[in-house]
Amino acid sequence: MTTLPPNPPAIILVRPQLGMNIGAVARAMLNFGLTELRLVQPRDGWPNPEAGPSAAGADSVIEGARLFDSLADAIADCTFTIGTAQTTRDMVRRVTSPAGATAEMQALPGKTALLFGPERTGLVRDDLLHCHAICTIPSNPDFGSLNLAQAVAVLGYAWVTAMQSPPPSWMVNHDGPAAQHELAGLIAAVETQLANNGFFNPAPGKTETALSMLRNVLTRPGFTGAEVQFLRGVVRSLAEPRNTGSRQLVQPPRPS
Amino acid sequence: MTTLPPNPPAIILVRPQLGMNIGAVARAMLNFGLTELRLVQPRDGWPNPEAGPSAAGADSVIEGARLFDSLADAIADCTFTIGTAQTTRDMVRRVTSPAGATAEMQALPGKTALLFGPERTGLVRDDLLHCHAICTIPSNPDFGSLNLAQAVAVLGYAWVTAMQSPPPSWMVNHDGPAAQHELAGLIAAVETQLANNGFFNPAPGKTETALSMLRNVLTRPGFTGAEVQFLRGVVRSLAEPRNTGSRQLVQPPRPS
Repeated sequence: MTTLPPNPPAIILVRPQLGMNIGAVARAMLNFGLTELRLVQPRDGWPNPEAGPSAAGADSVIEGARLFDSLADAIADCTFTIGTAQTTRDMVRRVTSPAGATAEMQALPGKTALLFGPERTGLVRDDLLHCHAICTIPSNPDFGSLNLAQAVAVLGYAWVTAMQSPPPSWMVNHDGPAAQHELAGLIAAVETQLANNGFFNPAPGKTETALSMLRNVLTRPGFTGAEVQFLRGVVRSLAEPRNTGSRQLVQPPRPS
Repeated sequence: MTTLPPNPPAIILVRPQLGMNIGAVARAMLNFGLTELRLVQPRDGWPNPEAGPSAAGADSVIEGARLFDSLADAIADCTFTIGTAQTTRDMVRRVTSPAGATAEMQALPGKTALLFGPERTGLVRDDLLHCHAICTIPSNPDFGSLNLAQAVAVLGYAWVTAMQSPPPSWMVNHDGPAAQHELAGLIAAVETQLANNGFFNPAPGKTETALSMLRNVLTRPGFTGAEVQFLRGVVRSLAEPRNTGSRQLVQPPRPS
């Protein structure tokens, strides 16, 4: 279960063009626990009926959005503002990554803000002059212009993940591997049956190689106790058909 | 200047619904240097005229998209597949984060694939059974359903930024998992033999449960091509003893 970091930044859309995109931004925000939306001079006014459908249920963000006449007003109460941009517009400014920007914001008290520019141009130089730093989303040098809401989603993801570093991979619905003696029972059962069936090559070293491989493929997955029992049943059935008298080539139903 | 990592994964959209979203996915892909799009049973067919506008210039991705009748066909040449999902559908599977998933993919040779499900439901259990691991995007527990293209953007961002950080755990002496069609051959061989041997319980749902468990235990480990071949030999030997006339209970030598 994801724990959302406290004190999230405000998302400020500067001169956004399409209502549909404002709604998509609201959805992306709420996906990552960002709830405070501020709009500076939206092209088609506000409220905008096209925002609702693409918000896809993030109505609270849409309804709570605040409208401002200028960027200066929108950030008046913010202690730290970062503007997203692909380039630095020929200006000396600190540039950071989404991970860096959000980590800084989590380390700061007070209200912070992330700024996003209009769909067509992005933030212009005068907008970026209001920012403490610039955040550049690393992207394809030949195709770097992100959709507005997708850019917000990337920053939202960075916000949620900046906080904690979970283990990069873990197992779900897993009781833990079976006790080693259960696994040993499975391996021994397979070995015995294979030996009975003439599986092992008597050439020097070949049998040992096969036994090592068998142990490896059965040990590495970390099968649960239930899975080990299941596999014992599989091995038993393969070796000892239930109805030996009438073998038929039946194709089993495939999972749909 | 961002350096795009080599050998990017294929993006596989499973039963996508809206052409507009397919286009938005193409744009997000190209933003992060992902160029190979595969579509499994898109609801409205393919090509779809609604994809172009939202691709916003990522025409090469749209034009290069390949259409498949089944997920199995779409991943046949892939050695490592990760499905995106918020929940684990009651199945024992390794779960990783976007950063973890993409780091693993960068460490592997061969073709890898990231799977995304339909807009309304996401990937279902039968889809995830084809995957070696599940990737969960950390998000708001109360509003966790991401827009399809935004989810692709988050994974694309993770792909571009995963480059420098090695996974904290990796596999040694491992050529990477077998191509999916090899694994499918093993699973089918076991299923057929078990069906012939009367393994499956005819009670309602029991056969499906056993088939799911079989697919799960054979997919999750990520067996190499050599291991898959070895296991086919094991299954063949268990089912068809080499010298059926003289079965003896021989205890094989144990590895020291």
